[in-house]
Amino acid sequence: MHRRIDDFMDSITWFSQHPLVDPEKIAVWGLCFDGNIMLATAASDRRIAAVVAVAPMMDTTGDPERREALLELALADRAGRIAGEEPMYLPLVDEDGVTALGQPLGNFFSTMEGLNMPVENRVTANTYMRCVNWNMLHLLPKISPTPVIMVTPEHDQVFPASRQKEAFDMLLEPKEHCILLGRNHFDWMFGDMDVAFNKQLDFLKKHMQL
Amino acid sequence: MHRRIDDFMDSITWFSQHPLVDPEKIAVWGLCFDGNIMLATAASDRRIAAVVAVAPMMDTTGDPERREALLELALADRAGRIAGEEPMYLPLVDEDGVTALGQPLGNFFSTMEGLNMPVENRVTANTYMRCVNWNMLHLLPKISPTPVIMVTPEHDQVFPASRQKEAFDMLLEPKEHCILLGRNHFDWMFGDMDVAFNKQLDFLKKHMQL
Repeated sequence: MHRRIDDFMDSITWFSQHPLVDPEKIAVWGLCFDGNIMLATAASDRRIAAVVAVAPMMDTTGDPERREALLELALADRAGRIAGEEPMYLPLVDEDGVTALGQPLGNFFSTMEGLNMPVENRVTANTYMRCVNWNMLHLLPKISPTPVIMVTPEHDQVFPASRQKEAFDMLLEPKEHCILLGRNHFDWMFGDMDVAFNKQLDFLKKHMQL
Repeated sequence: MHRRIDDFMDSITWFSQHPLVDPEKIAVWGLCFDGNIMLATAASDRRIAAVVAVAPMMDTTGDPERREALLELALADRAGRIAGEEPMYLPLVDEDGVTALGQPLGNFFSTMEGLNMPVENRVTANTYMRCVNWNMLHLLPKISPTPVIMVTPEHDQVFPASRQKEAFDMLLEPKEHCILLGRNHFDWMFGDMDVAFNKQLDFLKKHMQL
């Protein structure tokens, strides 16, 4: 997670030196867990002019009853790699579409296949240890004065709208919460997307003087 | 911070395979910021049989008024290194013995010199970004059932006893809080140390069946 944030900061360094980019007008956009990561990045990187967090998964700790088993597998994964073994993989989702953390990912795989972006169904056990320990909620009040728009599908089945709202409430101004009525974590990406994207564009235009 | 925790977990893997070590009886001991790191490590590594956290510095976010300046320097440090420059260093403490975070380190340098362990007075700007974002308080309730003893110098001038107590209260059982009366962050390491160490030994004997 932390390396991911480092990488995004370094990519902003790269973009801000690119001749086609106005370094004063770099916004970041993240979906699901990357909504979380973009918020965490913006708390440190003041070059970011605005954040769009769509259906952000603010909590990856998962089912507390699975924590101990995941930690044990993760430690075995680390020890195995030190001994020269291959990484230990767990499925991203089981046959019911549920992650090892106990989070339902719904139609994630069929969606990605539909987008011609097939994903391998595996994650290292060590990665799951990162998930169960990850928490960036303390950074939310520190993002201000960078403007944030959170876009929440009303029927988000992966990370509930009510919990996205809790995270939104921890942000300071300027901020905006846009609810996608009748949509879930995936289906807002198909059909009429104008409502979803026009709200985001209006927000960026307003706050970035576009 | 996270790499430090990873390294400690891997060192426990190494120790637990060593012929002189009983892998069921590995305790970890940490002073000041390493008290914090040992607590964070124990929340994931269930091979740890007990934790001793002495004068733990539970919060490294420092003075909020210094946050923005430190982030700016840290981002410049990262960008510079990508461009092939040397790391940017800030002093660990200024002439008043205060870190760039605004935390007083008191007689840290004279203490380390007295112990014949001289320390260079420099920290990279990027490291300070790790400090201002670090928070592991959410892991404290997850350390149980691993037993923890926290040892707090009554007059700790680096991280106040009252705030150590707040962290102690977030731990679940089994736990013990040992106050070193009349002592500060450094001076408990000199003169009569029997009280401090006998309490720790008694705790380890009790919980590790020594």
